[in-house]
Amino acid sequence: MENYISISDIDDLQELIAEALQLKKDNTAANLGKGKTLGMLFFNPSLRTRLSTEKAAKLLGMDVMVMNADKDGWALEFEDGAIMNSDKAEHIKEAAAVLSQYCDIIAVRAFPGLKDREKDQAEIVMNSFRKYASVPVINLESATGHPLQGLTDAITIMELQQVKKPKVVLTWAPHPRALPQSVPNSFVEFMQNIDVEFIITNPEGYDLDPQIVKNTTVVHDQDTALKDADFVYVKNWSSFNDYGKILTEDKSWTFSGDKLELTNNAKVMHCLPVRRNVVINDEVLDSENAVVIHQANNRTFAAQAVLQRLLAPSPRRGSYLREK
Amino acid sequence: MENYISISDIDDLQELIAEALQLKKDNTAANLGKGKTLGMLFFNPSLRTRLSTEKAAKLLGMDVMVMNADKDGWALEFEDGAIMNSDKAEHIKEAAAVLSQYCDIIAVRAFPGLKDREKDQAEIVMNSFRKYASVPVINLESATGHPLQGLTDAITIMELQQVKKPKVVLTWAPHPRALPQSVPNSFVEFMQNIDVEFIITNPEGYDLDPQIVKNTTVVHDQDTALKDADFVYVKNWSSFNDYGKILTEDKSWTFSGDKLELTNNAKVMHCLPVRRNVVINDEVLDSENAVVIHQANNRTFAAQAVLQRLLAPSPRRGSYLREK
Amino acid sequence: MENYISISDIDDLQELIAEALQLKKDNTAANLGKGKTLGMLFFNPSLRTRLSTEKAAKLLGMDVMVMNADKDGWALEFEDGAIMNSDKAEHIKEAAAVLSQYCDIIAVRAFPGLKDREKDQAEIVMNSFRKYASVPVINLESATGHPLQGLTDAITIMELQQVKKPKVVLTWAPHPRALPQSVPNSFVEFMQNIDVEFIITNPEGYDLDPQIVKNTTVVHDQDTALKDADFVYVKNWSSFNDYGKILTEDKSWTFSGDKLELTNNAKVMHCLPVRRNVVINDEVLDSENAVVIHQANNRTFAAQAVLQRLLAPSPRRGSYLREK
Repeated sequence: MENYISISDIDDLQELIAEALQLKKDNTAANLGKGKTLGMLFFNPSLRTRLSTEKAAKLLGMDVMVMNADKDGWALEFEDGAIMNSDKAEHIKEAAAVLSQYCDIIAVRAFPGLKDREKDQAEIVMNSFRKYASVPVINLESATGHPLQGLTDAITIMELQQVKKPKVVLTWAPHPRALPQSVPNSFVEFMQNIDVEFIITNPEGYDLDPQIVKNTTVVHDQDTALKDADFVYVKNWSSFNDYGKILTEDKSWTFSGDKLELTNNAKVMHCLPVRRNVVINDEVLDSENAVVIHQANNRTFAAQAVLQRLLAPSPRRGSYLREK
Repeated sequence: MENYISISDIDDLQELIAEALQLKKDNTAANLGKGKTLGMLFFNPSLRTRLSTEKAAKLLGMDVMVMNADKDGWALEFEDGAIMNSDKAEHIKEAAAVLSQYCDIIAVRAFPGLKDREKDQAEIVMNSFRKYASVPVINLESATGHPLQGLTDAITIMELQQVKKPKVVLTWAPHPRALPQSVPNSFVEFMQNIDVEFIITNPEGYDLDPQIVKNTTVVHDQDTALKDADFVYVKNWSSFNDYGKILTEDKSWTFSGDKLELTNNAKVMHCLPVRRNVVINDEVLDSENAVVIHQANNRTFAAQAVLQRLLAPSPRRGSYLREK
Repeated sequence: MENYISISDIDDLQELIAEALQLKKDNTAANLGKGKTLGMLFFNPSLRTRLSTEKAAKLLGMDVMVMNADKDGWALEFEDGAIMNSDKAEHIKEAAAVLSQYCDIIAVRAFPGLKDREKDQAEIVMNSFRKYASVPVINLESATGHPLQGLTDAITIMELQQVKKPKVVLTWAPHPRALPQSVPNSFVEFMQNIDVEFIITNPEGYDLDPQIVKNTTVVHDQDTALKDADFVYVKNWSSFNDYGKILTEDKSWTFSGDKLELTNNAKVMHCLPVRRNVVINDEVLDSENAVVIHQANNRTFAAQAVLQRLLAPSPRRGSYLREK
């Protein structure tokens, strides 16, 4: 693996999932990352992603340096040829090259603005780091994807499935704020690449990017979609069509005990944080069906499997770290 | 020890103090904490407490992850059954459970609001973590107590005492801001549990919580109280009765060289930071009698003794870490 | 070395440079810093300096604790005898002494205000730490100097020089904000102490502190100065005479391809971050002549050489760490 910016950087998903579950079972990890540094650069705040990735890196023996670009007001210029006489103090060309001197792997978080769809889809931050960094780059959630979460979710389903080809339903739920599509996008991509029966359900107007959805079935009636589900992934997102807008907060889409009744005693997933009694009701989150904490724990092993891939020299694949 | 949230979590204070002093003498510490992670969660800023606890953890071989909840604006919901459609993005149930996945021990700092006495006394943050975390919880200063400081203070007195049963005086001093009662509360509790002659002196209206003071003598005349003291602990706190209020900034309570004359050449203590010439005068702080830096150094060993207790599997007591 | 606050703390610059280049070649570093803690205290934001110094410390096996005094609003009192009844919560006497308990080396960054020249030149923050800390102090950029950058620059020139005594030109360049003189000051000091032919060029009114410049040639015509240069160090600074002011943003001083033509195919240096097409043009920064990334990488080895000096007990020089 050369970078981990999207699912397309993985060439053998099943094997990567197996590696993560192996790490979970026997985390003697040891010294693969000894003397190596992970630099984590946050343009947006992070708690869960930071902690799980930092923990994963340290389990591998790496040093971790955390940079909060949002707070230090480190305004980067991304445009080629810009005359930098205003508020941008450093060009991405230098920034990425310099971080590549101090770090063996760079992990970056950069949320979408949710105002300009074309701009968000250009993934300018992530793609600029890919272009100008001389070390591997990891996506800690970008404008349109969250592949560490997507990998976590695939791991969790493979780990907990009780039938060979479980039915997995991604369902939209209401939320008082406009949220990115990055988590559902990555979930869809990962589900399309493991052996499950997968459908999406959301209100009219909330269909995800057709380039992501491809030929996955989208049902606009939640009750129909939930029928016989083995896994239900509950998540809010803002409209892709009417970009970044909240079209409805329809409470009938809140995932409740009644909805759970429609499923095949489904495991209920969410990436967290979750707003109780708005997205998912207490009676579900406090039940045995909720696997959200189990899922959060798997974040560590997903990150560790990815870091291991980027670090590990092996007969089958070389390390992608830069020779210094 | 299962948690370290208040003095009641210690069942053998003398022995814990002895362990801390042993660590101070021979800090080969080694690898008790190797592969274990301390998560430090700050709802309020911290410098001294963070550094000493971080240092203690690293001396034990632990990894440390610091989370500034105050700055990341990570607003937690603490109420059961809340409909979370406003500013709180995550419920403590998930937050504590998730942190328990990434950390082997969670340390939390959460100051009082000093507006609503009943609310502060409920210690909702600390008690919620105790309830919902599946790993040990350490109090890094809460609404009503600061047991790492209290332990440090007990260690310092046991280490420096020159008579078998020294006279220890806790004296109030003026301060321009309304401060919590957490440090004096913990000091009182620890003094009540070691072999000293202990009295408190403060102006009328500044008596601490009677549930903490119990049958400890409180004297409202500072000069009388200081007579023959071997240790004087100087500290400001806001009124408990007229909750959170500053009733006086009476400079006659400032601890001066004249006050020191009244004592038995007392050692002068303060938890720091100290406002010079308001709380304690230069001539005292710059004298041999001041042991505030020595005391600050002991913060490390108090934290290390507590962490060791939580980590250490021993014949007499098991580790309280969660099996993962 | 007892501290590293200015170039005067180095007694054998050539040897220190050689040590840094040796570390760059063979960074097995090992365990010199094992069990030792570097505390980094920032009164101003830092990215490059923090990362390179943190990395250097970790390569030596040290633990690193980062403190952002700017954000935590930790207002220190520096005046002797002050009555601290206003916004300053702690005196430098206690602050430095307490940090010396938790850290084996303290590194401090404190920028100038650029309002009051006398105050900036007093270097009150750095000198107070030197006075009140009981452990070595490292300057991470202060009001009037940036000796880690200066050492880096000397290392880079010694490493890349192709003639025995290269011609080095420090040239002013325009910038939209008033910047400190600390980087050019330290560059001048280091150039005066290695075997180079060194001149400074800047517009009238921008002459640096005569106490720093000493008998170094200053030329006010950039084209004349650049002739046959082997190294060009481009940097903006605000006026020393008309203290902290921007007197001109004259674009004819921007370092362009045409300017490069005047030199002896010079290596172009800058401490970064650099504003493209304001300070240096794209055609120069994107050419083989620019060594700014190479130079940034050397920050790590400069910091490591300094830390090694402070840590290393050797036959020739003892460790300067405090016995605890």
